[in-house]
Amino acid sequence: MSTIQENANALEQSIRNSEEFNDLKAAYDAVMGDEIAKKMFDDFRNTQLELQQKQMQGIEITEEEVDKARKVVETVQQHEQISKLMDQEQRVNELINNISRTITKPLEELYGAEA
Amino acid sequence: MSTIQENANALEQSIRNSEEFNDLKAAYDAVMGDEIAKKMFDDFRNTQLELQQKQMQGIEITEEEVDKARKVVETVQQHEQISKLMDQEQRVNELINNISRTITKPLEELYGAEA
Ligand SMILES: [Ca+2]
Ligand SMILES: [Ca+2]
Repeated sequence: MSTIQENANALEQSIRNSEEFNDLKAAYDAVMGDEIAKKMFDDFRNTQLELQQKQMQGIEITEEEVDKARKVVETVQQHEQISKLMDQEQRVNELINNISRTITKPLEELYGAEA
Repeated sequence: MSTIQENANALEQSIRNSEEFNDLKAAYDAVMGDEIAKKMFDDFRNTQLELQQKQMQGIEITEEEVDKARKVVETVQQHEQISKLMDQEQRVNELINNISRTITKPLEELYGAEA
């Protein structure tokens, strides 16, 4: 195994053992274990995905769709467990973004402002 | 410093010291040190970036633009140093993609087929 792969494995293990990841897992399991919360969360994710795909395909998003998305967001934000899950997802995203910034430093330095 | 940050730093160092990265650096420096190659490579990158941005914005790409892009690609592929640089970029991209797959395993497992 290459040094890079060994170091990547060590990093993966430390992410797996981190408070951030384990808090996320607990929040995710809490939502998935609650039938109503799970349905609300799935609706929210599907709505987001649908809008993202339309944006990527350059399809115009109607006023009704924007309204619907806003209502779905408002609903899930008021649900304590889902709101907690979204906060934990945010924390893990930041963790992964920081790692990503660290390991792409050699490329950034090479390509300068372009990378 | 957290264990995660320490492991990310170790991984960053091993990328920086890798043959893949150092071959890329050598290929990049060779192109950047050659005025004609540099100009060809910049043209190629700018053409690609322009088309990508149009695609992302949902702007239709004309037949002339596709032809121009094809010609630019053909030209750079025939340039030995640029072609070498593109191969090394591909190798480093694969390296980074493998790392990325490794460190996002905990998330993939948590979210199952959705992530
Ligand atoms: Ca905690
Ligand atoms: Ca070599």
